[in-house]
Amino acid sequence: MIFSTTVICTATTSMLFDIPRLNPLGGIPQDSNIAETVSDDFQTFYYDQTLDHFNYWSESYTTFRQRYVINSKYWGGANRSAPILVYLGAEAPLDGALTRIGFLNENAVHFKALLLYIEHRYYGNSIPIGSIYERTDLGYFNSAQAIADYAEIIIYLKKQLQAQYSPVIVIGGSYGGMLASWFRLKYPHVAIGALASSAPILYFEDITPQDGYYSIVTKDFREASETCYQTIKTSWSVIDEVASQPDGLSILSKTFKTCNALSRSSELKSYLKLMYASAAQYNSPPRYPVTIVCGGIDGSAPPKTDILDKVFAGVVAYYGNRGCYVNAPQQISESETTVGWRWQRCSEMVIPIGITKNTMFQPSPFSLSDFNDWCKSIYGVPPRPRWVTTYYGGHDIKLTLHRFGSNIIFSNGLRDPYSSGGVLDNISPSIIALNTVNGSHCLDILPSKQSDPEWLIMQRKVEIKIIKRWITQYYFYLDSLFQAIN
Amino acid sequence: MIFSTTVICTATTSMLFDIPRLNPLGGIPQDSNIAETVSDDFQTFYYDQTLDHFNYWSESYTTFRQRYVINSKYWGGANRSAPILVYLGAEAPLDGALTRIGFLNENAVHFKALLLYIEHRYYGNSIPIGSIYERTDLGYFNSAQAIADYAEIIIYLKKQLQAQYSPVIVIGGSYGGMLASWFRLKYPHVAIGALASSAPILYFEDITPQDGYYSIVTKDFREASETCYQTIKTSWSVIDEVASQPDGLSILSKTFKTCNALSRSSELKSYLKLMYASAAQYNSPPRYPVTIVCGGIDGSAPPKTDILDKVFAGVVAYYGNRGCYVNAPQQISESETTVGWRWQRCSEMVIPIGITKNTMFQPSPFSLSDFNDWCKSIYGVPPRPRWVTTYYGGHDIKLTLHRFGSNIIFSNGLRDPYSSGGVLDNISPSIIALNTVNGSHCLDILPSKQSDPEWLIMQRKVEIKIIKRWITQYYFYLDSLFQAIN
Repeated sequence: MIFSTTVICTATTSMLFDIPRLNPLGGIPQDSNIAETVSDDFQTFYYDQTLDHFNYWSESYTTFRQRYVINSKYWGGANRSAPILVYLGAEAPLDGALTRIGFLNENAVHFKALLLYIEHRYYGNSIPIGSIYERTDLGYFNSAQAIADYAEIIIYLKKQLQAQYSPVIVIGGSYGGMLASWFRLKYPHVAIGALASSAPILYFEDITPQDGYYSIVTKDFREASETCYQTIKTSWSVIDEVASQPDGLSILSKTFKTCNALSRSSELKSYLKLMYASAAQYNSPPRYPVTIVCGGIDGSAPPKTDILDKVFAGVVAYYGNRGCYVNAPQQISESETTVGWRWQRCSEMVIPIGITKNTMFQPSPFSLSDFNDWCKSIYGVPPRPRWVTTYYGGHDIKLTLHRFGSNIIFSNGLRDPYSSGGVLDNISPSIIALNTVNGSHCLDILPSKQSDPEWLIMQRKVEIKIIKRWITQYYFYLDSLFQAIN
Repeated sequence: MIFSTTVICTATTSMLFDIPRLNPLGGIPQDSNIAETVSDDFQTFYYDQTLDHFNYWSESYTTFRQRYVINSKYWGGANRSAPILVYLGAEAPLDGALTRIGFLNENAVHFKALLLYIEHRYYGNSIPIGSIYERTDLGYFNSAQAIADYAEIIIYLKKQLQAQYSPVIVIGGSYGGMLASWFRLKYPHVAIGALASSAPILYFEDITPQDGYYSIVTKDFREASETCYQTIKTSWSVIDEVASQPDGLSILSKTFKTCNALSRSSELKSYLKLMYASAAQYNSPPRYPVTIVCGGIDGSAPPKTDILDKVFAGVVAYYGNRGCYVNAPQQISESETTVGWRWQRCSEMVIPIGITKNTMFQPSPFSLSDFNDWCKSIYGVPPRPRWVTTYYGGHDIKLTLHRFGSNIIFSNGLRDPYSSGGVLDNISPSIIALNTVNGSHCLDILPSKQSDPEWLIMQRKVEIKIIKRWITQYYFYLDSLFQAIN
């Protein structure tokens, strides 16, 4: 929506750096069968938010309307200092979160919790008005400003509700999970604990090997099917070989039923790479998209089928029967989410995902200088790839958080490629890693289903138990302080 | 220097809000007998610092040269991961700190520490060039940007020195002490501990009663001498009475040997109030300025001397024999320090010091709206009085930092009026308050003297012991992590 002018020209270059978004929700549309009706218990409000929390010149006093939503149906009330569960919005409009973040809806009654959802600045309905088309306005669009927004709204709301002593737990998934853990570290006086689901806070600079992401995609496919993995691994050179023949691109276009003639073989390869990545990232029960893709690849009879036919059968298995594939006509414009997240990646969220070896993909190392050039060509300024680790840390995290901080759960599904940049070991007795071997991206905070496997049910149970312990400890200490005063 | 254009017109109004600066050093000039020669072991460097850490538009990429100074004479070296003691510059040029912050110089050899001093942005030699006369430039001048500067420089320097595992301890006094404690809380991955001397981090919003500061000034005088206290307490109405007479101001001018004729009695009263405050804040051994002022007030013979003569005798005792007093001709322009700190107070450092009752002064409640008006008249924008508590916390600090954070020493002298806004009780086993009953402002980090009393020697000893323990614990944990890896 807002940044659409910058999009079209860079769409092809950007494929170089495409990766499934950091988002709790994703995968193929038919994956989701969740009722989308938002109940009347959710009330929408707007807060006049400060544009720039870290500057004092007149423009920084500009405010914008930031959306937040409250569900107080189950709240035990301010008198009882009943808890507040806060969903920290990520790179998407808030609407989806109201029904899709099951962790809040399902636990409100047990915690007697107020539910608060806050939209991230520059997404959904929380976009500063005024000079929005001017490049300078984007400067305010970053994580430090976003978590400062959250702090202001939570403090404001607790005051409004006279709920000064209600403990706040912040919850987020993926990029929102990073925000949740950073929020707990930076604003311990606002939130007593954080649940950071699938938050790859260590995928910055040189902390995580750049291969991390695609190594796990590869592992997921190999575990699903050795033959499927082999087929995919071989397919790239086959595509290159066909492409190099006279008329090769039109053969590929025909084989993959592309919506438009392929202009380059990389167009096809990027599409496939992104499909495998997406299947792995959102490889959730009961459908398990990786299994579905491999079912297509392995299952295409007769046994002697051409390798590209097999790969195409995987595409069809994943996306279902469509008129055409690969380069479907673009939407009128990319969603604000896609465009907003591109800006965030081109400013501070420089997650250096690349491929050097040991995957089923062709090598494609992450080049910071190419990335810089790409970002500069769009926005005129280069990213600051070292800022996240300067502001939030990440290197030697066990050492630096030893005896510092508390009450954070880092939950990960180890089949999620982003888990490679996640916190997978306990940092301390109260900064805890909760992994599931078969889990994928953000499963724990999504609505529970009848079909949920035991390990997922258990992961959620442990999370709830830990959060309950934080709250109990908090109340206990609160009482002891009051008794000391009186 | 840089803001001088704004100063002249507001000099009188500003008296309303004048208070001794938050600074380790102060009091009467002759108080200091410390050699000022900086040894050759101190080397000066400049870092190209980012103007705006929290924004990504092109202007924020502007850099300025930020001064830092290193003394590596006693350093045990990177190979041994020997410690780094970092002085966080406050609202003054760095030069004074190199000799006056004895805590670093005196302990370097025992800790085998590298000494690093970093100048605060917009003071001394660390002032952004370019559009400095434009109002917009001041926006970048705040504490969050300043501690981000410190993080960048420390991370950069450790990399340069290949001293990745050298533990960093940050040290600061007064405003710099606030920065030190906030730095430890916000950047635990950069500093393993902080010594925050005389840091009134709780003197914001409604956390500390506004009377706190002047209550302690009063207590100091009353403890020094009941008659002195009574004289001062009575003097204000006497001044008012004289001033209300025809020709009263010239009588006052004569009594107080003012350099220029008094235009209002408040000119005299502000001068006295600030003198008493300064004497109390910097009431350090062996001279104890409060005792000196009271010596003047009590000692002026014969016993029936007029009350204003007594007060004037206090002035002479404090300032020594001068040609004239009270409204000496202004310096050519106010120092950048004074002017810079005025901006900081008018943006985020809104310390609401006022007088409502129970002091030896006339009531003069802090009025946020008057303060707002004053700041707006100078800078065009109002302060944000709630931002410090939003970003750094402060309310219910025991509750909010329970089981969160570690390794901070809050040291205070209880005769220091700013101690009223300090952390005077332990927050946790490793966030510790170290108070001295007779201490004044920042004594512990100043150079030790032969004449130092036992309680001051002890305070420093305990600080060193605690910091040594932090470092030992750090090395122990570092070793255990390495062993776990190897």
